[in-house]
Order: sequence, then C-alpha cells, then structure tokens
Amino acid sequence: MNDDSQNMLSAFMNVNLTSISNNYYKISKFVEPSICAATVKANAYGLGLEEVAITLQKSGCKYFFVSDLYEAIRLRNIFGTNDNAIYALNGLKPTRTKEYISHKITPVIGSFAELEEYRANTSESIDHRIALHFDTGFSRLGFDMNEIGKLSINGLNIDLIMSHLSTAEDPQSSLPENQLNLFLKANNRFVGIKKTIANSAAIFRGKSFLLDMVRPGISLYCGYDGKEAPGRLESAIELYAPIIQIKDVEAGSSIGYGASYRAIKDMSIALVEYGYADGLPWSLRSTNHQSGGQFYFNNTPTPILGRVSMDIVAIDVTVLKNDVKRGDMVEIIGSNQNIDTLAKNAGTISYEILTRLNSRVKKYYKYV
Amino acid sequence: MNDDSQNMLSAFMNVNLTSISNNYYKISKFVEPSICAATVKANAYGLGLEEVAITLQKSGCKYFFVSDLYEAIRLRNIFGTNDNAIYALNGLKPTRTKEYISHKITPVIGSFAELEEYRANTSESIDHRIALHFDTGFSRLGFDMNEIGKLSINGLNIDLIMSHLSTAEDPQSSLPENQLNLFLKANNRFVGIKKTIANSAAIFRGKSFLLDMVRPGISLYCGYDGKEAPGRLESAIELYAPIIQIKDVEAGSSIGYGASYRAIKDMSIALVEYGYADGLPWSLRSTNHQSGGQFYFNNTPTPILGRVSMDIVAIDVTVLKNDVKRGDMVEIIGSNQNIDTLAKNAGTISYEILTRLNSRVKKYYKYV
Repeated sequence: MNDDSQNMLSAFMNVNLTSISNNYYKISKFVEPSICAATVKANAYGLGLEEVAITLQKSGCKYFFVSDLYEAIRLRNIFGTNDNAIYALNGLKPTRTKEYISHKITPVIGSFAELEEYRANTSESIDHRIALHFDTGFSRLGFDMNEIGKLSINGLNIDLIMSHLSTAEDPQSSLPENQLNLFLKANNRFVGIKKTIANSAAIFRGKSFLLDMVRPGISLYCGYDGKEAPGRLESAIELYAPIIQIKDVEAGSSIGYGASYRAIKDMSIALVEYGYADGLPWSLRSTNHQSGGQFYFNNTPTPILGRVSMDIVAIDVTVLKNDVKRGDMVEIIGSNQNIDTLAKNAGTISYEILTRLNSRVKKYYKYV
Repeated sequence: MNDDSQNMLSAFMNVNLTSISNNYYKISKFVEPSICAATVKANAYGLGLEEVAITLQKSGCKYFFVSDLYEAIRLRNIFGTNDNAIYALNGLKPTRTKEYISHKITPVIGSFAELEEYRANTSESIDHRIALHFDTGFSRLGFDMNEIGKLSINGLNIDLIMSHLSTAEDPQSSLPENQLNLFLKANNRFVGIKKTIANSAAIFRGKSFLLDMVRPGISLYCGYDGKEAPGRLESAIELYAPIIQIKDVEAGSSIGYGASYRAIKDMSIALVEYGYADGLPWSLRSTNHQSGGQFYFNNTPTPILGRVSMDIVAIDVTVLKNDVKRGDMVEIIGSNQNIDTLAKNAGTISYEILTRLNSRVKKYYKYV
C-alpha cells in the first residue's frame, strides 16, 4: 500500500515502474539475441502510456507497438524526435499517410488497399520505414500468405514483417506452430528484413518463436507464469478501494441489486467504494450458489456478496467485525490476489480489466 | 451519423443533448408535482458530466446526484456558486467535512459514524444542508429503518431523506412495494422534509413511488420502455467504428483469438477498429454455437465473428461484399441497435457498457 495515496480516501492503483523495468530486463535477457520490443497500445494496457513508455525507454527499449495513428502520435510527442521506432498496428488510416511520415511513425500495412494508398501519397524515393503484416491463420489483420507473390515491394523501405498468433497461450493447440511455419515461408521474399511473431505467451512457448524481435505486452505489466518464464516476472499493479460503511445484516436479508444474494446467517458487511464504473466487472457477482471471489483486508479474505453496483460492492467482514472501520482500504489486486484470479472469477481476461480502468481510479507511480 | 466526426476515421460516439433535454421534460411532466432531479454520477453514466449537467440545468433541473465528494466538487466547479443542489450519494468522506461545506455539497449521510463526524466538525448553528439515507431492504448504504428512533437530529438542517430500491425493474418482485411501505414509516419523524425513493424503473412502476422527488439516471440517457413510460423517451447515444480491413476467408478458417469461430463457408469479413479497450465487452463473442449479436452497415446486420480483441472485432460482410470498403463506418449503437440489445448479447447491463466507454472513444455533442 501507499500511505500518501490513502489521503484521498478514494480508490487508487499503484503502478510499480521498477517492476515493469525489471520485467523488461528479464525478458530481454531471456530472448537474446532477439530484440525485445514492447506493446504499449491502449494507453499501455491502461497503466498510462507516458509513464510506462518512458520507463521502458530508460530500460533500453527502442521499439514500441501501439494501435493506431493517434496513439502513435501521442507516443511520438512523448518521445520527441529520437530514434525510437513506433509501429501503428492497425495499418494505414485512410487519407492520413503524410501524418505517419511527419511524425516518424511506421504503419504496419496489411492489405493491398493500404499499400496502394501509401504509394500514391509518397514519392518513389522515400526512405520512410513501413512494416508489413501477414495473416498466417488468425483471420485478422494482414496479407494472406498466398498473396506474397503478388506483392510489389520495389522502392519500399520495409523495416519489419510481422504476424500474430491466435492461440499462443494454449499448450494443447498446434496452431501456433502451424502459423510460425507458414510465416517462415516469407523468408525467401524478405531476406535481411526483421521478422516478429511472438506476443508474451509465444515468448515462453518456445525459442523457435523468438525470431528477430519479440513484442511482449501483458508480461511486462502483470508477470507471466508460463513454465519457461525467466526468474520471476512481477505484477506491477496493486488496486485498493475504501470501505465507506460497515453494517450488520440479519439472516434472511437480501443484499444488493436484484436481491440475488440472501444472508444465510447474521453477518457484518462492508460497502466498498468501487464498482463497475471504476472497472470492476459487473460479472464479478456472488449468488448463494456461486461465488464471485473475494477482496482482502490485511490478508484476510472478504467474500463478495451479491451484485456489483456502479460505485459500490458489498463484502463479508463478519470475521473482521472488530478490526475494520469506515475509511479502511481493502485489496482488490495485490499481494493476495493477482489480476488473473480476479479475471477468472469474472469470466473474463486480465487484459479487459486492465484496459477498462478509467480516470476515476487515481494512479500512483512507484519505484520499489 | 455525423459527417464531421468521420474526419477522424476513428470510433466515435454521438451524444444527442436535445434527446436528454426532451427526456428530462417528459419525465418532469410525468412526475408532476414531484421534483425531477437527475442522477449524473460516474461522469453522467459515461456521457460527459459537464455537457450533460449543463443541458439538464438549462432544461430546468436544480437537483443533481453524484457518487462522491470529488465528483461533487467537479460538478460544483461546472455550475459555479448557483443554487443547484448537489448530493454526494456515497456519504461523508472521512476527514473531509469542511470540503462539503466550502463547496456547497450535500452529503447523503447513512451511518452513525458519519453523522458523529459531521457534528464534530461543524458548529451547532450551521445551516449547511445534509440528506439522510435509509436502508429499507437493499443492504447497501443507509441507516437501518429501526435505527430511526436513535437518531439525534436536533440542530441539523436536513434537506432530504432517501432510500434506494433493489428490484424496481422486476414486475414479479414485491420488494419495491415493501421497501416503499417501510420508508413511509419515516414520515412521522421527518415531517415537512422532502422524500425520495424512485430511480428510473420505479418512476414507471407506479405513482406511489414518486413521493416528493424522483432521481432518474439511465432513462434520461437511453430511454426506457416500461409500459407506463411517457410518450417516447429517446436514446441519446450512437456509437460508430471504422472498418480497417476487408478480407476473404476460406471455409474452415478459424477467426480470432482462441480460434473459437470457424468459417462454415467462404466468407468476406471486415475488421472493425473497436475492441474491449474501447469498451466493447469481451463477452460479446460469437462461437459457431452461440451468436454474440451483430453490428449494422447501412441498416444491414453484420454478425460478430469470434472473440473481441483489444482494438478489433471481426464481422461478417459476405452479403455486402461489393458495398463496403476500408474506412466505412459501422453502427454499434444507433437506429438499428440500442444499448440494451448490445448489453443483453454480452450478458451484462447497459449501465456497465456506458460507464466503461473510455477516452479513446471521441464524443461529439449534438443538438438534433
């Protein structure tokens, strides 16, 4: 916890930039001699683009992936005119070619429509760098691999070719290996050009995925527990929220919206000032038949009761009745509960929870 | 759609302030002679506190409900020092009593701990207004009704007493009527003080819930289709996102993360630049066995295929193959699909979708 941050008496998130830096070092070392880039799209997965990107830059990162042109311009303004490469994954935004060039942003082009527009708006001799995206079985962005032969690449300054995996985290799936093998067929056409296919899960799936560059995202921010993950990657985030009222409820009382939870005994409940408007999934509800999990107060689990409201969620503090008071903070994510557990209890993925944390949740950047 | 907003070629939301104003007029008329307040917490349910609050003020609203002290201060700064009442629903934030007074904010006090702290930090003769919250069966914020006798209210300037319903939208539940009857027992103790219990659903449940004041939220922004709802309440929001690539996929191809959807025939798909980082629920996925619903292109439904990614979702445009192109906008919420349908397909509630729309989604305020 962070004593300073409690002064607001509102929910807050600690982002430990030292952990992000440590994770970057460990992954960089693990993938050597491949280049370790960083995926910082969606406001660095909700953690704050400026703070995270500057931290990664200081840790030696020179290659950054964002979603689109506007995120890329934001990042370019953070970096200034240095040599860091900024890749806009979602391709060439229509009618905006000149902005990629003026802001030194590398569009990741994945269709003939984009490539034609890029050529039509640049001179033959331009040395601006582009990347090409190949779809190897994801059915998302990128040229189909069987279109490689039709690609006219003369005069283009192609810096990187990439593909993306659909099931890298699934040890039972053979799709990633199939995608990799298909992608390697591009070797003949793109001699001497950097290649990348690995997201976080692929980095720890097998060395064959590392190629010239890897693009970790979630593993920089939340750690990764794949069996090949190096040393111990750290979670960089903690999330706390305040108790705003404590009350006793009698056995038989219904708790929360929809009256979906009924107290089976006399209980003490605490009302925590954190709800779905702050990014807590509405699906993290508890009925009498299915638990939505818990928060923690001083390392003691406090089960969620009933539905999550817009700004409030109820927890069971019966066993802590004499220890908790209004104004105390409870742990939603921290040393007792990582974001993966929270996500699993809500039936979603950690990425969704991270990226939906909004501006009501104050962030504190730490170096610990 | 909004021609200006397409210039960004990014996802955007239209917020029709005229619709919000019309809804306020209709509800005000419906509830006369009750006062029509407005619930604008969580950044006016994600629509933008400043624009929405000013619109409601111009429409005659003088009573506003927000979550906590900090939202209340933000709203006070928007209004300036006028007479609008601002209620902070989450009670008295510890150690902050003087800020409620200096910013002319009414704390909605619901526990003895808060009331004691308020008294300890104010003089006996203070005329600052407070509200009291009673829990009539929700097991959330508020004094228990059986604590009324113990309440010492001498010297307090109580402006309003309130309660909140747990199942107002459920016609099968008798809890709302029970809660109302219990709340009315406060009449004897609080003679001449305004009373409010009705959220949007309760307003249209029955006239007995209207009391002195009603507190609509969602019905101001998204309409309401309860059978007693007056005239036609309007949805004030539209949400569009651009197509960034169109591609053909062969029968048997898997689409998206987890390879959870398999093309059952040769298809044309469009990749829409909108994902869970923009507020689209990850749970809005389609497998081959269960549809996640659809978006619309020029009024033609375009089914969602596979999982929602962080920034992208795939839709089926096979029947539109010759009509769509990169850069075209698709409707996520609009005349063909309201937010309730989207929420239902995602297994959540409209409130969660609204309040999680983040700053990547540009908002355009319209008066139509």
